[in-house]
This record gives sequence, C-alpha cells and structure tokens, in this order.
Amino acid sequence: MTDAAFERRTRACQQRLREGTGDLAVLFPSRNLFYATGFDEEPQERHLFLFVPREGDPVFLVPALYGSQVRAESWVEDVRTWSDGDDPVAAVERVVGDLAVPADAHVLVDDTMWALFTQDLESELPDATFGLASAVFDDLRVRKDEAELDALRRAGELADEVSVAVRNMGEEAVGWTESELAAEIESRLLAGGDSLAFDVIAGSGPNGAMPHHAHGDRAIERGDPVVLDFGAYVDGYPGDQTRTVVFAGDPPEEFVEVHGIVREALEAGVAAVEPGVEAQAVDRAAREVIEDAGYGEQFVHRTGHGVGLDVHEPPYIVDGNETALEPGMVFSVEPGIYLEGEYGVRIEDLLVVTEDGCERLNDSPRGWHAGDAA
Amino acid sequence: MTDAAFERRTRACQQRLREGTGDLAVLFPSRNLFYATGFDEEPQERHLFLFVPREGDPVFLVPALYGSQVRAESWVEDVRTWSDGDDPVAAVERVVGDLAVPADAHVLVDDTMWALFTQDLESELPDATFGLASAVFDDLRVRKDEAELDALRRAGELADEVSVAVRNMGEEAVGWTESELAAEIESRLLAGGDSLAFDVIAGSGPNGAMPHHAHGDRAIERGDPVVLDFGAYVDGYPGDQTRTVVFAGDPPEEFVEVHGIVREALEAGVAAVEPGVEAQAVDRAAREVIEDAGYGEQFVHRTGHGVGLDVHEPPYIVDGNETALEPGMVFSVEPGIYLEGEYGVRIEDLLVVTEDGCERLNDSPRGWHAGDAA
Repeated sequence: MTDAAFERRTRACQQRLREGTGDLAVLFPSRNLFYATGFDEEPQERHLFLFVPREGDPVFLVPALYGSQVRAESWVEDVRTWSDGDDPVAAVERVVGDLAVPADAHVLVDDTMWALFTQDLESELPDATFGLASAVFDDLRVRKDEAELDALRRAGELADEVSVAVRNMGEEAVGWTESELAAEIESRLLAGGDSLAFDVIAGSGPNGAMPHHAHGDRAIERGDPVVLDFGAYVDGYPGDQTRTVVFAGDPPEEFVEVHGIVREALEAGVAAVEPGVEAQAVDRAAREVIEDAGYGEQFVHRTGHGVGLDVHEPPYIVDGNETALEPGMVFSVEPGIYLEGEYGVRIEDLLVVTEDGCERLNDSPRGWHAGDAA
Repeated sequence: MTDAAFERRTRACQQRLREGTGDLAVLFPSRNLFYATGFDEEPQERHLFLFVPREGDPVFLVPALYGSQVRAESWVEDVRTWSDGDDPVAAVERVVGDLAVPADAHVLVDDTMWALFTQDLESELPDATFGLASAVFDDLRVRKDEAELDALRRAGELADEVSVAVRNMGEEAVGWTESELAAEIESRLLAGGDSLAFDVIAGSGPNGAMPHHAHGDRAIERGDPVVLDFGAYVDGYPGDQTRTVVFAGDPPEEFVEVHGIVREALEAGVAAVEPGVEAQAVDRAAREVIEDAGYGEQFVHRTGHGVGLDVHEPPYIVDGNETALEPGMVFSVEPGIYLEGEYGVRIEDLLVVTEDGCERLNDSPRGWHAGDAA
C-alpha cells in the first residue's frame, strides 16, 4: 500500500463525514487507524489519537516515543507529540481548539476505543454527542479490493496447509494434550504467517461442546471428535477455518450423522450466497438444515462473521441482518452443533462474494476421518 | 487459584464500592475480569459483562455460546445468556433492573471497555455518571501475592534464557533480518511460555532509535547496535526485558559510552527502589544520570511501568507519580537513549519491591558485546 492509497481512504472518510455522519472522527490504535494511515499498533494506555475533521488535514497526536515512527510510517503530515510527564488531556484540548470543533459537535470515536480515553474526550467536549466510527468505516472496509483479497486468499491457503498437516497426524495425535496440539498448530501457522488471528482452538471430546474453549490439559483419546479452529494473519489479513476430526478409533454413536448435518448446513449456507441476497438469508439457509434435523437448540451461535483487517467484522451472518451482500464482501459460514458434556461439531470456510455467487477461500478436506481426502 | 480465591477478590471489590468509589462496576473481557473471576477471554464485539453491585451477588451476562464455558470456569453462580438474534441491550436493561441500580448511580466501567459498549451503557443509564474500574482494581492488583510473584519470577527466567541464547548467536545473527530474528525469539519464548507478552522488538541500527519499532526487513549488519525487547506470559504473568547488543564487529563511535550511560542509569534507578520512596523518585534517579551526561533530550519516555496481569499497569515510574512504593509492587526500570537516524540503546529489568529494597526478576548479561558475560 502506498501513502497515496492510505490518504485516499482517509479522504473517503472525510467525504462521509461531510455527508452528515459527523463533525469529527477520533481514532486510536485500531484497525480503522491502520486502514486510514498504515500505522499499526496495539491499543495501550498512552493517549494516541488521529483526529479526522470534516475538512482540511487530519492531526496525529502521539506519545513522544512514537513520534519518529509515526512520521516515518504514515502519510499524515501534522504529527504532534506529548511527553511522559505532560498532561495528555491538555494536548487533546489544544488539538480540538486548533481544529475548531464546534461545542455541540457529533464526534465519532473508534468502536474499540477504551473508556479511559472516551471519558477524557467526553469531559473535554461536554456538549458534544458521541457515535461510533464504524458509521463511517464499516461501509468503506466491507468491500475488499484486489490487494486485500489476495492477502485473504494466501491466509486461506496457509490455514488449508496447516489443516492438512494436522489431519495427517492421525493416530499419532492420540495422547497429545489439546495444548500440545495447539502449540504444534501455532508453530506451523507462524512459520507461514505473521501472527495468530486468534488463540488456536483445539476442543476435544466434551471441550468441543464449548464453542470458544481454546485448549487445555485434556489428552486426546481414541474416538474423540476434536474441533480445530485456527488461522494466521498474512500481510495484514487473517485466515479462519474450522474442521472437526477424529484422529483414530471409532467416534461416538450419532457423531457421524451430526457431522453430516453440519456439513450439509455449511453447503446450504454457501449455496445461498450471491449479490443482493440478505446476510440473514445465509444464516437462515444453514440454520434450516440443522433445525430440520432436530438440533436447532444446539446451534447456539450465528452462522458467520465478516473477515478483513479484523477477524470479526461486518457483515455478520445473523438473523435480523438485512444487509444485501455485494461482490468483495468476505465472511465465514460456520454452522455447529454442540452436545453439552459429549462433543461439538463445527465446520467453517471463508468465502468472498463474487458477481455471480462466491469463491471459497478454504479448500482443505472437510470430512471427519483424519486422513480422509473427502 | 481456587474459586474461593477469585471470589475473595470480587468481594474486596464490592467492599471498595461500599467505601464510596461507586454503586456498580461493569467489567467486560479484561484483566480485571480475569482477576475477579478467572474467566480469560479477549475483548470481542458481543456484549459480555460482569455486573458487580455494591451488595449481593454479581451477575454475568454472556453470549449464549459462552454459557457453558463461563459456568464451568467461574465461581459466579448467576450466569445469564443472550443469543445471536436477541437484542443484547434489552438483556442489559433487565440485569440493571434486577440489580435495582439507582438512576443517578456512579458506574465504574473497565478502563479498556470499548466505546461500542460504554455508549450502550450510557444510553441505558442516561442519568448515571461514569468512572473507571481502575479506581477499585488498581489498588487491589498493585501488590502481588506469592503465587503471582512466583509466576513473574518464572517469566523473568524464561526471558533471561532466551536473551542468553540469542546473545550467543553472535556472528551468526549478522545478515538475518530483524523479522527473522524476532521469529527465532518468538519461537524460543513460546517453547517455554504461554503467549507473547507483546510483539518482539528487534530494532537494528537506526530502527533502534524508534523505541516501539517492532521489527522489519532490515538485515542486521556488523557493528549494528540491536535493541532486543521481549517477554512471554507464564501462568498468566508476563516477562519484559530489554538488552542492546552488538552481534559482531565494531559499534559506532560513542556507542560504548552511550551504552555505559544507560546501564548506569538502570543501576541508579534500581538503587533508588525501596518501600516508601515515591515512584517518580526512581524516574528521577535514572533520568539524572542521562541528563548529566547530556542526553536528557534523547531519553524520550518514562523510566518504567508496573507489570502484572497487564504488561503495562500501575505503578508508572514517571515524573509526577507520587505513589509510595510498597512491598509486592512489580515494575520495570528501562532507561534509554535514542539517537534518531543512528541507533538506540535501552536496557530493562523487572523488579519487585521487598521490605528493604528490591529483588530483580532479570539476571541475564547486560553488556553490549554479544557473548559478553558481564
């Protein structure tokens, strides 16, 4: 990405502000800030803001120790610093004054901005109203361009490769703890990617019935269904893929049927995707398969989530979301059935909406039998 | 940690509320939530709150897919769930009603709570005033108990081991890119720890002059000073250590002197630590050495930060912080000198305040010459 490309994104944000979404956007270290400037940092306790007014140039206010880095890495020219020992709130006050923000402004803050900072902004602008920066950025970020899709495809391929390698462990994985298996997956992901997209999930047996259990000391037994959900960032964009496998031995009764239902639900969801269809219709298509099979109560989450700079972002594939799908949108389809105390099954692919349907970003085997080519 | 130990922490929080800090604390996935319940999750876009009233029992409100996990992992008995497709704000409203929160309550929210959620709470309680949960938790968390210190010691030993191994690469590291070196450090840290405490910093040559530059494509050259700052979590508590080394060849003129000044500043800071001393006095002691040597302007950050469940937490070792040090407090001393366009030098140890001084949690060689035993 060039500086000019980042600047275009910020200018598009200002255009939306002028169209009436707000008077000022205030970003802090977040995906929105990366999207607008290329500056990539984790949130932290020091005041670090980008002020984007309706008109004119944005202003970076950063701790002194980030000064050189921000000047080197971002296209923004007006970079102001404050030092440890200074009062950062006074520095904010000066910027707000220089930008002539009206007292009754509508200010959009980053959705993930910490209360530590929003409370400062609120006391600095007591007559302002506050909204969320997603009002501007969601619509800009939701359609991915070719460079973004290229990174997402490579992140998908990496997840596929690791999935195949882990599946091929077969019998060897029996006796490993979930955490040992997760460490193996992590190390394979980091060999090809930049960082983990989220904590690796390796939920064996009853732990798989807790959809967001990450991993623990439980050793994998013969016949255990194991939910494997992982991905890594490649050039700023994450992979996210789930398979449920049995490494060796015979799975519990009913498991083969349950796995088949989830797989059918995945395919039904994917088949429903095309431009103009509402996001909730994809949820409905996948959910119907599971409800019809009598497991509706055990499918305890939405069918999917958008994926981009964030692993979870719009469009959410959930009942009530009437967003019409458009080419370039990327999201997961990940139906699951969770039988408390027994096991869970989830299968997840990412896909991108195309002009006439969708392109899947994952292509590793989806069957439950480790080593299965299906 | 037992359920009873986590419950005691929450009860201590309620005691502080009754002492006048607030009417209600609302936590979301954060270190405070982990501290109070043992529930360990990353922040995410779904409403997941722990409501801690002054009196009575706390209430967990969590997305349905976390229900089993929260019931299994936390001592809190009143766990309520909402499902994708439900309105989470209505669920919040019911909890607030059941807890009989007064309309004009003073509500403490997690310092890191996202604006996405604070804006919901603010519209739910339009006549309430809002503060930060740190008003209650900082004072509870700042003195570490023996179990916490034990984990911090082990995290320190891990950072030491990795530091020695990397230093011993010597000549071999020349030609590696910063990112390759960071990946090597990462893999060694993850072999002994649970997760990275933060992105590994490997700042070579001029990149070392940007204190928070992580790592990039620059290849390490003979004579380059390289700032290496890293750590990993061990049983929930992080390591954080910095050394500045030269892997091979002759460093730039003045570097040896600059390195010596920083090392002297480190020792002066550490020597100033004892119970009753103000946090800012430690900053002053380290800073004076650097100012006296004429590099005051190039020491662009505070001298240190507390370390516990968070890598950055109170007490901050910074001018203006009059907090009196107490036994059990853990923080970094990390003076640095940054010569823009040339190189940076930072040396950092963690320490715990003891009854009569301090115990250092890092003990790897602090000299600049790779392989140096000093």
